[in-house]
Amino acid sequence: MSQDIPKEQWAQVIHKTGGPVEYKKIPVQKPGPDEVLINIKYSGVCHTDLHAVNGDWPLATKLPLVGGHEGAGVVVAKGDLVTDIEIGDYGGVKWINGSCLQCSFCQQADEPLCSQALLSGYTVDGTFQQYCIAKAAHMARIPKECDLEAIAPVLCAGITVYKGLKESGVRPGQSVAIVGAGGGLGSLACQYAKAMGLDIIAIDGGDEKRDMTKKLGAQHFVDFTKSKNIVNDVKAATEDGLGPHAVILVAVNEKPFQQAAEYVRPRGTVVAIGLPAGAYLRAPVFESVIKMITIKGSYVGNRKDSAEAIEFFRRGLIKAPYKTCGLSELQKVYDLMHEGKIAGRYVVDTSK
Amino acid sequence: MSQDIPKEQWAQVIHKTGGPVEYKKIPVQKPGPDEVLINIKYSGVCHTDLHAVNGDWPLATKLPLVGGHEGAGVVVAKGDLVTDIEIGDYGGVKWINGSCLQCSFCQQADEPLCSQALLSGYTVDGTFQQYCIAKAAHMARIPKECDLEAIAPVLCAGITVYKGLKESGVRPGQSVAIVGAGGGLGSLACQYAKAMGLDIIAIDGGDEKRDMTKKLGAQHFVDFTKSKNIVNDVKAATEDGLGPHAVILVAVNEKPFQQAAEYVRPRGTVVAIGLPAGAYLRAPVFESVIKMITIKGSYVGNRKDSAEAIEFFRRGLIKAPYKTCGLSELQKVYDLMHEGKIAGRYVVDTSK
Amino acid sequence: MSQDIPKEQWAQVIHKTGGPVEYKKIPVQKPGPDEVLINIKYSGVCHTDLHAVNGDWPLATKLPLVGGHEGAGVVVAKGDLVTDIEIGDYGGVKWINGSCLQCSFCQQADEPLCSQALLSGYTVDGTFQQYCIAKAAHMARIPKECDLEAIAPVLCAGITVYKGLKESGVRPGQSVAIVGAGGGLGSLACQYAKAMGLDIIAIDGGDEKRDMTKKLGAQHFVDFTKSKNIVNDVKAATEDGLGPHAVILVAVNEKPFQQAAEYVRPRGTVVAIGLPAGAYLRAPVFESVIKMITIKGSYVGNRKDSAEAIEFFRRGLIKAPYKTCGLSELQKVYDLMHEGKIAGRYVVDTSK
Amino acid sequence: MSQDIPKEQWAQVIHKTGGPVEYKKIPVQKPGPDEVLINIKYSGVCHTDLHAVNGDWPLATKLPLVGGHEGAGVVVAKGDLVTDIEIGDYGGVKWINGSCLQCSFCQQADEPLCSQALLSGYTVDGTFQQYCIAKAAHMARIPKECDLEAIAPVLCAGITVYKGLKESGVRPGQSVAIVGAGGGLGSLACQYAKAMGLDIIAIDGGDEKRDMTKKLGAQHFVDFTKSKNIVNDVKAATEDGLGPHAVILVAVNEKPFQQAAEYVRPRGTVVAIGLPAGAYLRAPVFESVIKMITIKGSYVGNRKDSAEAIEFFRRGLIKAPYKTCGLSELQKVYDLMHEGKIAGRYVVDTSK
Repeated sequence: MSQDIPKEQWAQVIHKTGGPVEYKKIPVQKPGPDEVLINIKYSGVCHTDLHAVNGDWPLATKLPLVGGHEGAGVVVAKGDLVTDIEIGDYGGVKWINGSCLQCSFCQQADEPLCSQALLSGYTVDGTFQQYCIAKAAHMARIPKECDLEAIAPVLCAGITVYKGLKESGVRPGQSVAIVGAGGGLGSLACQYAKAMGLDIIAIDGGDEKRDMTKKLGAQHFVDFTKSKNIVNDVKAATEDGLGPHAVILVAVNEKPFQQAAEYVRPRGTVVAIGLPAGAYLRAPVFESVIKMITIKGSYVGNRKDSAEAIEFFRRGLIKAPYKTCGLSELQKVYDLMHEGKIAGRYVVDTSK
Repeated sequence: MSQDIPKEQWAQVIHKTGGPVEYKKIPVQKPGPDEVLINIKYSGVCHTDLHAVNGDWPLATKLPLVGGHEGAGVVVAKGDLVTDIEIGDYGGVKWINGSCLQCSFCQQADEPLCSQALLSGYTVDGTFQQYCIAKAAHMARIPKECDLEAIAPVLCAGITVYKGLKESGVRPGQSVAIVGAGGGLGSLACQYAKAMGLDIIAIDGGDEKRDMTKKLGAQHFVDFTKSKNIVNDVKAATEDGLGPHAVILVAVNEKPFQQAAEYVRPRGTVVAIGLPAGAYLRAPVFESVIKMITIKGSYVGNRKDSAEAIEFFRRGLIKAPYKTCGLSELQKVYDLMHEGKIAGRYVVDTSK
Repeated sequence: MSQDIPKEQWAQVIHKTGGPVEYKKIPVQKPGPDEVLINIKYSGVCHTDLHAVNGDWPLATKLPLVGGHEGAGVVVAKGDLVTDIEIGDYGGVKWINGSCLQCSFCQQADEPLCSQALLSGYTVDGTFQQYCIAKAAHMARIPKECDLEAIAPVLCAGITVYKGLKESGVRPGQSVAIVGAGGGLGSLACQYAKAMGLDIIAIDGGDEKRDMTKKLGAQHFVDFTKSKNIVNDVKAATEDGLGPHAVILVAVNEKPFQQAAEYVRPRGTVVAIGLPAGAYLRAPVFESVIKMITIKGSYVGNRKDSAEAIEFFRRGLIKAPYKTCGLSELQKVYDLMHEGKIAGRYVVDTSK
Repeated sequence: MSQDIPKEQWAQVIHKTGGPVEYKKIPVQKPGPDEVLINIKYSGVCHTDLHAVNGDWPLATKLPLVGGHEGAGVVVAKGDLVTDIEIGDYGGVKWINGSCLQCSFCQQADEPLCSQALLSGYTVDGTFQQYCIAKAAHMARIPKECDLEAIAPVLCAGITVYKGLKESGVRPGQSVAIVGAGGGLGSLACQYAKAMGLDIIAIDGGDEKRDMTKKLGAQHFVDFTKSKNIVNDVKAATEDGLGPHAVILVAVNEKPFQQAAEYVRPRGTVVAIGLPAGAYLRAPVFESVIKMITIKGSYVGNRKDSAEAIEFFRRGLIKAPYKTCGLSELQKVYDLMHEGKIAGRYVVDTSK
């Protein structure tokens, strides 16, 4: 381990469920034989982090906990078994920090379904600290030409929406509705959908989000705060009026999860990604059967999806809006998020 | 048109929603230029027929109506444009009696989604008569070596469950739970699943259905009338305890449609086929997303699925139990069906 | 039939295999009950037309023959059975003029594989005339907002390369090599590949084609007239040096058909589209197996592919270069084509 | 490491390319931290082993070399990092002994394409010894209820043909031709194809193989030593005369690799698995394109395919013929194989 690595570092720590987060100095960990230590430069802030603080998901967190799972930085130390990563490489810490690589799910490249998966900022400490541990096998490989600040939100939000778009089965030239298109996930979803050659119907509320999603590539916008009939308006936004081929649900409340089945095209696919606490998917059996619609859940990407999502960024195709503040100001970001006031994504700079 | 074709025939006619059916003589129709006239020998009786009588689906029927859509018989007349069918050929009348063959759904071989599809025994007269009209393009081609009595239930129930199994994406060697395995659809689903190399978990109630499903090829049985924890019991019936790769819902009540998401394997698929009146699909967003499950509706098969389902029968792989009675006794079959007392399928003989 | 339709028209007619084409007046045909008559305004000229003249494919043509299968025009008459097309609609005549819509291939939407398919400008008269017959079920529906001159080459070349890209299974973000990228098919392949979010390696010869393919969306160019090692150069044009995910062969000579297997990525797909007379696909068994590569043939698109390819054009995403001359000058176009001197596509104006 | 493990053991060693193999005592190795030591009880003998002796493939072997890669035995020692395998477990050694688990191919579960893959009995010592090293991540997990002698051939031949059948995309109810159906790979292919619900056309020579393939589940047999027109005979063995949906090439000479494209059904798939030295795949461009056929190479299975292939065996569905002799008699097996005289598979007992 390099002598430059300090023994202590700044971090945001959750001591009990419900919060608040405490900005304080904690020790720097040493990587195990199959791990790397990454000097996190920037970390995106995700709704999941708020759920980790609030403890309102049916899955317990580690306590005390350092949250965060969208961290981009530089590898400063590595274990003996790590042969394909060098000190100085750029590395990203994703939601899936590690997995067993042996079970039936890992064998089919569904590492997010591994029952032994480690979750950054949830079951292991995450990226709201200056030095974070990651399993080498899962560390996102970030090309040197990438900007670490701008890529941070790609490492969870970007990968997740890219995966959802892949899972939808939608093909270039087809149409996709993105529900919650103006949020952190949604803004990245617009950019990925554009890069994938899709015709985008952004659904969100307010003119700021309308303008933003148009800039991000959406051809159509349905404002749920103004529409008198969302189902009709979404269908009308498609060339033949039959509705979009896919619907990507990145909203943070329940209603769209029950409404999407009504406007998706026959044979279309509704992909649930967002995780409103306590929400249910719901659709009438009769219409679902005779329209042959598909409703599916899409979790985060596997390692391959992650590499593909990063490659889109490297090629300059993903430019989603974000604001940056210091790691010390994390609580303020949570407060804004709680109020639903964030368009795009917040990134924290761990040096401040 | 052959001189042997009578001007009048026996039929079961619904005069008003709610029934009853009336057994009476009605005129024999003449086929249009793209149609055939089939002398129906046998017709299966389907739950859908009961819904057509009761009018409890959100889709209106023709009135007066001759029901039935699982008819097997002999072609006795054809229109001028019909070139690939000969008088004397065996023909089947399916639920989809005709479709436009031009729209975007027909173009992708999803004829059941055609907005102009004609539905046998629902929007056009069906197979509970001795002479039935069918669009030639959709008439099921039945090889001469097939028994018309035994194949009748294949023409809707068989095609439908075969399609559902295809839609599930389940591969040979994987496991499938069939909910309602002892009923008319379920018993055929067991036979198709066996012929497709699947490991079958039959779910139904009572020892008669247990014994029948075992004979039909199910390796496992979960009795919902005895199980203390259906979710656990279904999972335990799979080799690794993670649940079946697919669930086929051919049940006639709502509960399984909401329970299947709990026992299906992560990355697994729940296929809704049965159509309980007023029922809803329902699943928690959180678990659906992190397990990445798929819930989809599967309607009836297209022409290709139909031909494939018939080919399984021709090869002797589909032998599902049925009982035969006269067409004149149709009301009795409805009464038994209403009471949930039918194991397997009923077939009516139009000559009695 | 409208009184405005003349009894005679100008056409280019092949009287015997080997040519030449003769520009002369011939009678205008009347559409059958399931047909339309289209006043062709513009028609693209395809390599296939040259093969039809030369008779060097193992499939005989009709004689005398009016060639051409990329015709765009206006519907001026229709048969009694045609209900979803109006006089005045824009219509396109594709290579597949009609098919049986009943056989096992038509049933699975593979109409190009129908053994009774009618081939425009090959087994039935085509678009090098002012008034052309098409089966209504196969007439390409062209939206009124489309320019008939610019869309003509889409009706065969566009549909064909779009189909080939679909068949390759390549996904947005992946890389595709297009061999013969500067020709008529290739230039459209570049535009479709760009619209589908692919990273394009154009392979062709000369600076004119280099410049043209860059404008059409290719990120990379390999000049086969200058490269010392095409296999290495193509691999080097991919981010990780492992080769493109797919190779689209629209070349008109045999060599690339045998070379593509060497530079395609392991698990990648080589799609043969071009049809050099007498050519063979060839690849070593050992390397093909241990790299798990796929080599497949892709013919023209079905009706659905055609509609999708047209929709890309309608949205303004397909702008491939073409030159226009009079129908009377067709022989000159053939001469240029024979000499390999055409970059992009030629279109003939039937009014001249 | 258990004290029962001897320091020396019997093995068959190749000292120079071209052979012969030498039966001699060599030291027992110790497993590294991520490895296991397996007491091999039985090992299948594969054509690949003969290629390893002869050095006629374009890939060099380790020298001196212990061949063999179908070994079934008992885990007797393991490294410190191995947590999910216990001493006493049944384990199998496959062709892919280990892979990096990090590269883009491993990430997508294509471990056989890993450029760092270790090949048992080729680049690392294999199973023609009593104690063999395997990477834990790749060791085949064999359930305790399986017979180690009978399962040995499944560990390469079984997995490989199962993978090939999966790669073909053929679905239950469709037809598959197996070329070389009476050999070691072919006999297992028949059993897997039967378990997958396929209609099997076995192609091989002689009545012994005819009888054997019928017992293994083939419905049809084409004898290449007697047929006057193999292409016609294979097509005639399918219900509609259009040819099989897939062709599995496990032959050991070149001719079928060039003939299969002629009898496969339009839209069908030819899968090359066998590896005749110096052979080429070859097919005419014109017919390949207009029939839209696919030709692909399929290498060995990944870890998931391996587990699935073993599960078919566990369920009692795979019973292919084999003969057993002592490890000391390996050279005799090679001699028989060289003469093409083996029906089914040979297994060696390492205790003799």
